This record gives sequence, structure tokens and C-alpha cells, in this order.
Amino acid sequence: MQKYHMRRQDREITDQKEISEILTQGKFAVIALCFENEPYIVTLSYGYDKGKNVLYFHTSAIGLKMEFIKKNPKACVSIIDDQGYILNECGHAYRTIVIHGEIRIVEQLEEKEYGLDIMLHHLEDKPEMVKEKALKNKEIYRKVAILKLDIISITGKKGR
Amino acid sequence: MQKYHMRRQDREITDQKEISEILTQGKFAVIALCFENEPYIVTLSYGYDKGKNVLYFHTSAIGLKMEFIKKNPKACVSIIDDQGYILNECGHAYRTIVIHGEIRIVEQLEEKEYGLDIMLHHLEDKPEMVKEKALKNKEIYRKVAILKLDIISITGKKGR
Repeated sequence: MQKYHMRRQDREITDQKEISEILTQGKFAVIALCFENEPYIVTLSYGYDKGKNVLYFHTSAIGLKMEFIKKNPKACVSIIDDQGYILNECGHAYRTIVIHGEIRIVEQLEEKEYGLDIMLHHLEDKPEMVKEKALKNKEIYRKVAILKLDIISITGKKGR
Repeated sequence: MQKYHMRRQDREITDQKEISEILTQGKFAVIALCFENEPYIVTLSYGYDKGKNVLYFHTSAIGLKMEFIKKNPKACVSIIDDQGYILNECGHAYRTIVIHGEIRIVEQLEEKEYGLDIMLHHLEDKPEMVKEKALKNKEIYRKVAILKLDIISITGKKGR
């Protein structure tokens, strides 16, 4: 596939602080997967681990997305800061990032616990309280599937 | 790929009126494309043509997504009605639809005009006024690329 640069350079977000802000403030990510020319899309809540440059997701252990991930770990992921359509201007106010990375199912119980912890701290304002309530039974760590996206590259774009 | 049904049937939206409502109210769609096991994601404003069961998009005529579309028209598209994360409940309020379809570049000038018209009527509350202002110069129809997604199937899902 031919290499392209972002056509509208005036719209590119190059400031790493702003990209990090979108990653930190976002609550869900849209994930494109594929296998043998069949595209698949799924939207999941996430937690951003800045230190490891990784996103964690939790999901059911069974289902079509798991089949795709097992067959091809490549993922293209979008996080959208939607600020709404601007009437009378044919424009939409947004900031978005697109991540290229590889997504894998976390097998180790310890990393599953770690990933869920990252998610709770990302999503909740009282993560310890929610953890106490929702994750009292350690059995839950065995039942839930945790996905990990290793970030390879990020580009950011914004529109009025 | 093995066939799956939606695991959480309590979350499936089966009411066609509700699916049509999400399609009609949405302002942008996230599109997963792929070629030879490389996934690609792009977010675009859209117009829904209920009569033809088609989505129209407009975009630049040059760029990576056009390469993907030319090589493989299969697309998996998500429209998200995001109602926000629910603190303390590990939950997100949303309605989402996933469309499987085929996306193509509209070549005919007449259909390009038609597609842009569908978009304006979908997105704007005074489409004729905006059309007058933005599309006075017919040259614009030649310059802009119009994409058309033929909808093959739609599933809907909601969460608390």
C-alpha cells in the first residue's frame, strides 16, 4: 500500500500533550480488526496505561472479535472527542486519534488484574470503591477476558 | 469464520424503528476497511438515504482510504449514540449499530449531486440555505469524492 501523509496538515495534531489528553479523557475506543479481507468493528471501554503505552479492554471470552484477534492481532483503533456538528457550516467539531497496534488476549491472571485496575483508574473517579464493590470475588478475573493493545503509532487530527 | 449470535441477547436492538432512529439521528460513522490483513479506520460525516438503504459520505479524492476502498469494497461501519459513562457502575450508556456493507466511489456526476443532497438534508436543518451558500459553484461536485455504502445487514445493541 502506498504511503500517504495527512493531506490536511492544518488539521493534524502534532502536540504529544494533546494526543495524550485525548487518550486520557476518552472513555471508549472503536477497534477495526480484519481477517482475509473481512473487516470487523467493535466499540469497547478502555483504560490507558501511559507508562506501558498500552490500552486495556475487558470483554466476554467468547465471540467473533476473539476469533478475529486470534487470527490476526493487527488493529486500527480510533478514539473520538466529539464536540458536535456545526449547523450551517457543513462542519463537525472533533478531535480524533488513530492508533495502529497489535491486540492480544491477556492470559496471565496477574496481568488481568493489572489491566482491570488500569481500566478502573481510567474510567472511574472512585476506583478503589468500585473495585471493592465489583471485584470482591476474585473468580471474576478468571471469567472476564482482558485485551491488551500495544500502541505502535498514533496520529491525531482535529476539525473545526 | 464461525457464525456467532449476539451473546447478550438482552442488549440486542431488534426494533427496526429504533435502528432507523439511530441511523437518522447519527451525524458520523466509523468505518473499518481492510486489505490483506491490514485494518484501517476512518470517521466521516454521513447522510442516510432510507429509500435506497444507503449511506453517502464525502471526502477528499486522494488518500489512503481510497486505496483501501478500491482494493476491497467490504466495510464494517459503526454508528454510536453515546450517552456517557456511568460512574460507580462500571457501565456506559449507549446505543450502537453495526453495518456490514460494500462501499464504493461514486463516479457519475448526477449521483454525486444526489449524494451530497442526501448529506445536506441529513446533517443540516436548513439544507437549501446551506446548499445555496456552499454549492453555488458546480465545480465543487467534480472536485469532491462521494462514497456510497450499500447496506447489507445491520445489528443494533444497547447498554445501560
